[in-house]
Amino acid sequence: MNRQIEELIGNLTLEEKVAMIHGDALFYSGEVKRLGIPAVHMSDGPMGVRQEFPKANWIPVGNSDDYVTYCPSNSAIAATWNRKIAYESGRVMGEEARGRGKDIILGPGINIKRIPANGRNFEYMSEDPYLISELVVPLIEGIQESDVAACVKHFALNNQETERLWVNVEIDERALREIYLPGFEAAVKKGHSYSLMGAYNLFRGVHCCESEALLGDILRKEWGYDGMIVSDWGAVHNTEAAAKSPLDLEMSVTYDFDQYILADPLIEAVKEGKASEKDIDEKVRHLLLMMFRLKMLDAAENLTRKSGCYNTAEHRDTVRKAAEESFVLLKNEEHRLPLKAEGMKELLVIGDNAERLHALGGGSAEIKALYEISPLMGLKSQLGGNTKVTYARGYYVSPKEESEESWQEKSTDENLDQDAVLAERKKVSEEVLQKREELRKEAVALAREAKEVILVAGLNHDYDVEGFDRDNMELPYDQDQLIEEVLAVNPNTVIVMMAGNAVSMGKWKDKAKAIVWQWYCGMEAGNVLTDVLFGRVNPSGKLPESMPYCMEDCGAVALGEYPGRPLTEEEKKHMNAHTTMTYNDGIYVGYRYYEKYNVPVQFCFGHGLSYTTFDYSDVKAYMLAAKGRSEKSDPLDEVAVITEVTVTNTGDRTGKEIVQVYVGMKDSKIDRAVKELRGFDKVELAPGESKVVQIPLTRRAFTYYDVKEKAFVVEPGEYQIYIAKSLQDVQDTVTVTIK
Amino acid sequence: MNRQIEELIGNLTLEEKVAMIHGDALFYSGEVKRLGIPAVHMSDGPMGVRQEFPKANWIPVGNSDDYVTYCPSNSAIAATWNRKIAYESGRVMGEEARGRGKDIILGPGINIKRIPANGRNFEYMSEDPYLISELVVPLIEGIQESDVAACVKHFALNNQETERLWVNVEIDERALREIYLPGFEAAVKKGHSYSLMGAYNLFRGVHCCESEALLGDILRKEWGYDGMIVSDWGAVHNTEAAAKSPLDLEMSVTYDFDQYILADPLIEAVKEGKASEKDIDEKVRHLLLMMFRLKMLDAAENLTRKSGCYNTAEHRDTVRKAAEESFVLLKNEEHRLPLKAEGMKELLVIGDNAERLHALGGGSAEIKALYEISPLMGLKSQLGGNTKVTYARGYYVSPKEESEESWQEKSTDENLDQDAVLAERKKVSEEVLQKREELRKEAVALAREAKEVILVAGLNHDYDVEGFDRDNMELPYDQDQLIEEVLAVNPNTVIVMMAGNAVSMGKWKDKAKAIVWQWYCGMEAGNVLTDVLFGRVNPSGKLPESMPYCMEDCGAVALGEYPGRPLTEEEKKHMNAHTTMTYNDGIYVGYRYYEKYNVPVQFCFGHGLSYTTFDYSDVKAYMLAAKGRSEKSDPLDEVAVITEVTVTNTGDRTGKEIVQVYVGMKDSKIDRAVKELRGFDKVELAPGESKVVQIPLTRRAFTYYDVKEKAFVVEPGEYQIYIAKSLQDVQDTVTVTIK
Repeated sequence: MNRQIEELIGNLTLEEKVAMIHGDALFYSGEVKRLGIPAVHMSDGPMGVRQEFPKANWIPVGNSDDYVTYCPSNSAIAATWNRKIAYESGRVMGEEARGRGKDIILGPGINIKRIPANGRNFEYMSEDPYLISELVVPLIEGIQESDVAACVKHFALNNQETERLWVNVEIDERALREIYLPGFEAAVKKGHSYSLMGAYNLFRGVHCCESEALLGDILRKEWGYDGMIVSDWGAVHNTEAAAKSPLDLEMSVTYDFDQYILADPLIEAVKEGKASEKDIDEKVRHLLLMMFRLKMLDAAENLTRKSGCYNTAEHRDTVRKAAEESFVLLKNEEHRLPLKAEGMKELLVIGDNAERLHALGGGSAEIKALYEISPLMGLKSQLGGNTKVTYARGYYVSPKEESEESWQEKSTDENLDQDAVLAERKKVSEEVLQKREELRKEAVALAREAKEVILVAGLNHDYDVEGFDRDNMELPYDQDQLIEEVLAVNPNTVIVMMAGNAVSMGKWKDKAKAIVWQWYCGMEAGNVLTDVLFGRVNPSGKLPESMPYCMEDCGAVALGEYPGRPLTEEEKKHMNAHTTMTYNDGIYVGYRYYEKYNVPVQFCFGHGLSYTTFDYSDVKAYMLAAKGRSEKSDPLDEVAVITEVTVTNTGDRTGKEIVQVYVGMKDSKIDRAVKELRGFDKVELAPGESKVVQIPLTRRAFTYYDVKEKAFVVEPGEYQIYIAKSLQDVQDTVTVTIK
Repeated sequence: MNRQIEELIGNLTLEEKVAMIHGDALFYSGEVKRLGIPAVHMSDGPMGVRQEFPKANWIPVGNSDDYVTYCPSNSAIAATWNRKIAYESGRVMGEEARGRGKDIILGPGINIKRIPANGRNFEYMSEDPYLISELVVPLIEGIQESDVAACVKHFALNNQETERLWVNVEIDERALREIYLPGFEAAVKKGHSYSLMGAYNLFRGVHCCESEALLGDILRKEWGYDGMIVSDWGAVHNTEAAAKSPLDLEMSVTYDFDQYILADPLIEAVKEGKASEKDIDEKVRHLLLMMFRLKMLDAAENLTRKSGCYNTAEHRDTVRKAAEESFVLLKNEEHRLPLKAEGMKELLVIGDNAERLHALGGGSAEIKALYEISPLMGLKSQLGGNTKVTYARGYYVSPKEESEESWQEKSTDENLDQDAVLAERKKVSEEVLQKREELRKEAVALAREAKEVILVAGLNHDYDVEGFDRDNMELPYDQDQLIEEVLAVNPNTVIVMMAGNAVSMGKWKDKAKAIVWQWYCGMEAGNVLTDVLFGRVNPSGKLPESMPYCMEDCGAVALGEYPGRPLTEEEKKHMNAHTTMTYNDGIYVGYRYYEKYNVPVQFCFGHGLSYTTFDYSDVKAYMLAAKGRSEKSDPLDEVAVITEVTVTNTGDRTGKEIVQVYVGMKDSKIDRAVKELRGFDKVELAPGESKVVQIPLTRRAFTYYDVKEKAFVVEPGEYQIYIAKSLQDVQDTVTVTIK
């Protein structure tokens, strides 16, 4: 293979090499027909294979052949805490990508959920690096089984959408290593992701795609990554810098492919001696290596390349099962849930989200789903005609042009007549308020008379969307008022919160008896919600992120400087950015912050109820002697402790429980989080059944990143191991001494 | 039950009764809340449950909760010749109708396919009354298992769409009894259809819905039908006539429900003594009886009413299996089919129908399908990325406004400036020709270079549509020229003819090596087509109708007076019609005509190939002694002869064969068809496997309708029993003597 690659490189002209390393279309690279090197075909995205685009147009082709299976978002996958589901979801996406003739699927996205503002959080997994690492590996393995490349993204620190192309991230090395990089390291070192996407933002003054520090020192050298590095679309800015950087392939959003940064300008630069052809060879080498791995090049190998398929019944079944484990039962007082279908003559369903289809939204994560079952359809279909289902929209979803953000934008537009803008704003606002009130009144009146009410509210892809951050965590469209009023007249109302990002529920969460959390969880979502509400599925998801009360409660706001500050004049001289963002919150992201700083949250990390109950007993910890050092494996990956707990299903129905293991060190010499997730397992138990669950902890579970040593080190001493149902629901604690 | 019904009738006021017997909305009848009598909820239609309409608007509600399973059309069901598939398809439709909260699903449509002109043929089954009768019974049983009523339609003689509201049908009694009524008789007497729909047209001078002869003498009295009779939407014309007629429920298309023929005008008529309340009681009685049968009325019974469901994976699987058996392999020379996917590097797909979705078309048969797999998507999905699939549209589907029919309409519109119309027509026609030529040239150029070509052509729901008859059988959009040119440059091209009605293939059928016929066969159509083309499904459908070369070859044109003649002044005095249509073709419909009159057809009734071969041997006929007459059963339904044949699969793959039994009487005293279908069975055989197939023939198989006797009678004498693969492919003949 290497010989073949070097031969090819030797035969390629400069122009041909350059053709290969930039987009020749919105979603594929240049081919070299003369030498039988095909284009690399890419597709978004994180929830399935995106619809087909023409070579040079962002208006989709619109054919009837590019509908696909709509998979649960990464936030949903993460909420399952199930490695096998991550693998199976990956397998579906890989088979579908290959089936659609793609070589790379542009996912998974695994950026840390640093703050609920981030409109793209729904595409990501968690605020916790361990949970991400454990799930991203099988997900990538699943994808790549079909001879298609995963593309882990966005490397790195793309933790907000505000100014995403022009925000410079300053971060201390420990936080970088402990929080923001582990997921990527696992993806490339354990998941062997064939490709990786460089992020839009800057890292310590340099755009990520041109960052030697990030792509060179860490990714290539430290981690030994020889996969292909593609830029986010339009994330490359400077020909000479990008030529030198370890980036391999420039993609962008415009149609002037020959004028891309790594296109004609690069040929020019080489000719002028400002760029080296050797650097270009290196990029081509990585591209060819990936193509060999995908069996795209060698003719004999190509015959053995796996073929895919899309829209199969098996895929639909798999994504349904994934969705089933993603639902999080946040609250269930007085056994409100599950509901009983038998004899239920009438049901009132309230909420725009009960009827809204979400697949075709969110930006590059959009899915042209073969179909999508809305909650209303799921309920009606399964209740089967014997229950009269009444629907009230409840709240008016105003178009984005009518949003506060949109008005603020207009109010600063000098080209607009501001008097007219004000008048228009007043008129539209009144109309919107009117519509909201009408819908709310109708819903509340119906709820007052109704026996059973399900209210499906939350966000939609006007808020969970690429390129946009929310200002706050409040539910839009006056939903709080609707929910409060409905609960006031009908306290039994079941609340379904459908969103891809944390929202404020503080105004009513204490009044609601039952709250079910639903992510964007794929084409079967409405059926699965119905299964959950009526008990055919026992919810088993747990929150992969904390649910703070409000944005201001976040570490990124309280300690950090989210969303960043404008550059000083001095800074402007040194970097091509608009704002800079210092991660003063350091390692205190998510639960690490809330717990350390005693900030109460609505629902904590790892929280999630079941229709059954689980008892934990016989907690133990076995210490393992250190093995002899193997040269190949990282000694930090050696198992140091095996924790053990007996879990018993003490309720009356089969259920799944996620056992969580956190590690803390009360007497540490250094500044540490109270505890950190270091292990978990998910077990299924029939009523009365007990299982002994063993969860291994590697030496890594006891490390912190030592900035001086430039390495993860174990501080010798006593550690607390917490066996827990959630961050806050610790069942037992074992103390171990690690040397 | 009867007591309860009479009590209710006794308690109902005239106004309440009248409210019940006409539409109170486009798709439901009036309710009587006071007495707990609910509205009867109806829905189209023949291929699944139609989307939701508001009470008084033909613009669909547009919710996300009324997508459904898109089932194969009745023409596809008929092509399976499989009674079990008819039952299973009915079961799906029943469950979905009930799941959507409906009480009646407005199907099946079983009018005789008298002429391929009829735009609604795709909704119907066959040209043969026996095939219809055998399939409609299990289909209705399947529907009604879910406590939802089938509504067999359109009763009767609604065999064309031209002037469908105003055409009077004159027909001789023998043809009526032998050809046009048996399907309906089976539907009500054996299928026990809870409801039936009266047709738009007139029968012997009277609109069907007001016809005592049809609804009273035949349906109610002769056949003893006590089900509910609903009018087609807008098929009622006269208050007094409809009040007296056996029609029970008037539905229509307008929103002035109180002004319906059987609404306020009926109350008026009763008060004026022009209509009798007793007649109204009779209608209410039938409605209540149906509602009891559906467990809509009695509270205790209501608790046991079946609940339905829609969009289940099982439904999708069932309709896929039905579709699989509906494909008809018309021609397969040189073993062109099945194709082999392995090693197929490239595939060219041509044709607008390869990419067109058909569900949401055709008139009341439209389906808001949960999804629909196009042929292109089926091919791409299953070929899985290793075969490069190229698509060329091949022909331009001009909008209906640009069709010949549309121009003819405009050319007779006195309100239009005819010079402008002519100029516009010339301009548009030139543009259309230009587009067609461009697409054709592109496709032919690609086909010339391609190794494998699949051309998917045919009709669409601009032609297979309610309210419209075709002028001729030619393929629209210059498809003949495209197919001829593609076959000229690539004779291996596989032709897929997708249509719901016979089309002329005469110009190229001898040149094509492989022709596959595809009906509108539901949401999985493209997957199934791919399965058929690549041999994962062995085609087993046979034509349920003849494929003549052209419209003029039909008995209805050659002997009849299709599409009818204007009424004479004298006739106008006696009937409320525009045209009259005498069925001079009598019993010579479909194959009965072509065979009797030696008219060659493209493909004969019952024709259909397989990828394997079947051998017929050991044909026998056992005579059965007449049983003692049972008072309950019709002596004509007693088995008289059992035919037997050993069928052997002599090929190398599993396949299904439809064995057909025709009966003729060469020496009959009366005028008879050469032979008539009287029995069939479908058997599955593994390679090398033999099965003995026994097909019983009842005495009815030897009857004709004696107009003087007013009964089906057996003419004693020698009958020929033909054991056949198709009408024209008789494998053996046995002669029996019937007394």
